[in-house]
Amino acid sequence: MDDTFPPTAVPAPRTGGGAGYLRIATEEAFATPELIRIWLGMVGDYDDPGFRSLWGFYGTSTAERPRFVLESLQDLGEKRLAAMDAAGVDRQVISLTSPGVQVLDADLAVAQAALANDRLAEACARHPGRFSGLTAVAPHDPKRAAAEIERGKNRLGLHGVIINSHTRGEYLDDPKFWDIFEAAQALDAPIYLHPNTPPKSMIGPLLEAGLDGAIWGFAVETGTHLLRLITGGVLDRFPRLKIVVGHLGEALPFWMYRLDYMHAATVRAGRYERMKPVELKPSEYLRRNVWVTTSGMPWAPAIMFCREVLGPDRVLYAMDYPYEYLADEVRWQDDLPLTVAEKKRFFQANAEELFGLPGT
Amino acid sequence: MDDTFPPTAVPAPRTGGGAGYLRIATEEAFATPELIRIWLGMVGDYDDPGFRSLWGFYGTSTAERPRFVLESLQDLGEKRLAAMDAAGVDRQVISLTSPGVQVLDADLAVAQAALANDRLAEACARHPGRFSGLTAVAPHDPKRAAAEIERGKNRLGLHGVIINSHTRGEYLDDPKFWDIFEAAQALDAPIYLHPNTPPKSMIGPLLEAGLDGAIWGFAVETGTHLLRLITGGVLDRFPRLKIVVGHLGEALPFWMYRLDYMHAATVRAGRYERMKPVELKPSEYLRRNVWVTTSGMPWAPAIMFCREVLGPDRVLYAMDYPYEYLADEVRWQDDLPLTVAEKKRFFQANAEELFGLPGT
Repeated sequence: MDDTFPPTAVPAPRTGGGAGYLRIATEEAFATPELIRIWLGMVGDYDDPGFRSLWGFYGTSTAERPRFVLESLQDLGEKRLAAMDAAGVDRQVISLTSPGVQVLDADLAVAQAALANDRLAEACARHPGRFSGLTAVAPHDPKRAAAEIERGKNRLGLHGVIINSHTRGEYLDDPKFWDIFEAAQALDAPIYLHPNTPPKSMIGPLLEAGLDGAIWGFAVETGTHLLRLITGGVLDRFPRLKIVVGHLGEALPFWMYRLDYMHAATVRAGRYERMKPVELKPSEYLRRNVWVTTSGMPWAPAIMFCREVLGPDRVLYAMDYPYEYLADEVRWQDDLPLTVAEKKRFFQANAEELFGLPGT
Repeated sequence: MDDTFPPTAVPAPRTGGGAGYLRIATEEAFATPELIRIWLGMVGDYDDPGFRSLWGFYGTSTAERPRFVLESLQDLGEKRLAAMDAAGVDRQVISLTSPGVQVLDADLAVAQAALANDRLAEACARHPGRFSGLTAVAPHDPKRAAAEIERGKNRLGLHGVIINSHTRGEYLDDPKFWDIFEAAQALDAPIYLHPNTPPKSMIGPLLEAGLDGAIWGFAVETGTHLLRLITGGVLDRFPRLKIVVGHLGEALPFWMYRLDYMHAATVRAGRYERMKPVELKPSEYLRRNVWVTTSGMPWAPAIMFCREVLGPDRVLYAMDYPYEYLADEVRWQDDLPLTVAEKKRFFQANAEELFGLPGT
């Protein structure tokens, strides 16, 4: 692995379809300057050690990568387009970065989500061939979140929903949030379940060792969230819901056999009030309702494994710009042992179909 | 998957090497009646919700599987041998089940570990062709733990060490525990890092949804522990340490690329006092110091993935008896797309070499 930063590799050329496919990156981050300012004001004392760790770092570190991230997140223009050109990315599906508005009080969160969505929609309108976006919401106001999903889809031209995992320690398997799923299913809007740092009730041994972030804590936290949706019955109540998960599904594909075995054993024994029988096995929900992207996981063995166990229609390309920006990673995925038609599915067609993106 | 219990499949015959290899199961559990009695006395009020969840269930549930587990754990004789015969397992490498003595006060823990080791050694002496064992220790008394490792190896004829992950919320990357590693390395005794339920500071959203146990929480907790050993410098200080991890490495093999990338980025940025530079990449420690077993993961895609990314010498068969006891699982692993020589490595030779077991 090239661990220099910024990347030194000669970038792959933007394909424009010349390779037989476009590259659509599906977990690409931005933030409004307003929201970053609010976060930085909270870093000192907000009662969420994961948030303080994450934005204390990206907001104030003087090291090269976090400074690049902080600056690049706030750009929805030429700098981003140049980075896409340099890495060979034709289109980004852009979403509000973690933790989004989910750490704010509900009224402020609703307003900041709307502002972020307006800004993102404007950028997409300026660059319709390069940018698409997802709708940010304040899950802690489920009714207004549902209304914002409708506004994002029908008025702003956005293509799904971004939820940065837990909201102040709460998870979406709680039925009080289900207006969000109702709206997303009715509008056929995929929900991208993006990582957050683990909540205070989970972060202890992770933060203590510096493992609370993207190295490990994100996966632990967001894998937990996805599994809660599955075992909590959300996908029985909303069988057409589409959930997108980065980092190759936060390892749930790796665990499919064990999830099925232990879920069946636990339900059969009646061990938990909160784990009632559901209609399908966990692995069956993964293959019916879940799509995974390769954000942060540009590694052929794991990508091919997920294609094998989930099916080729469920694995999509993502980069995770600007957190992960390495031209080599694009090339490694160009070099996957796949035909051009399979690569078109992986880099382009799955994303176009799932998010309803404009065709070429 | 057959989710009936007890297993209804026709069992595979014990091979006795007739298939070209013996089947050595390497993560097989027992408990002394004395320790179970102590645990059950603690279930009401011990300040560890994961312990209360785990042993409240196995100790008191009237459902069929937990009753089978509770009874089978306490047998080191005919019942276990019959189960091995029925499933086609030639040898078990047996260890004290989770959380072992690690929830007890240190003096009691030391005494109960010694008792468990004596009992296990006696059973192994009675059935030297069928049973081998690992040494239980009280990590919270590191000096006496080191002495017990020496006693287990040199006087009891045991073949390694079992540590059931965290000890009262503490992790072994803390240098105060390193007498244990010193002894294990000096005696060439592999340490089996077995799951525990997440500690109080981590279990919040897991327990709330019934995900604290083998379905997910075990992996989260023990994967965290292994990663702490790697990023905390333990394997620089003890480069010949051998760590064995069940459940195909608690998914760390799946994450190898991301662990390397994010570890390098985090260290480079100086983000955490507790994450100092180490000599190798996380993936390099996994390939040098870590062996993984298939306990609870009898699933060809994940097994073959781990063989691919770790190498065939690092993946060993395990069943996880009596928690997981299903004759079909043995047959599925007999049917892995491997030659007889490769299966001998997987089922037999890797275990014989790693644990120094008596040859055939």
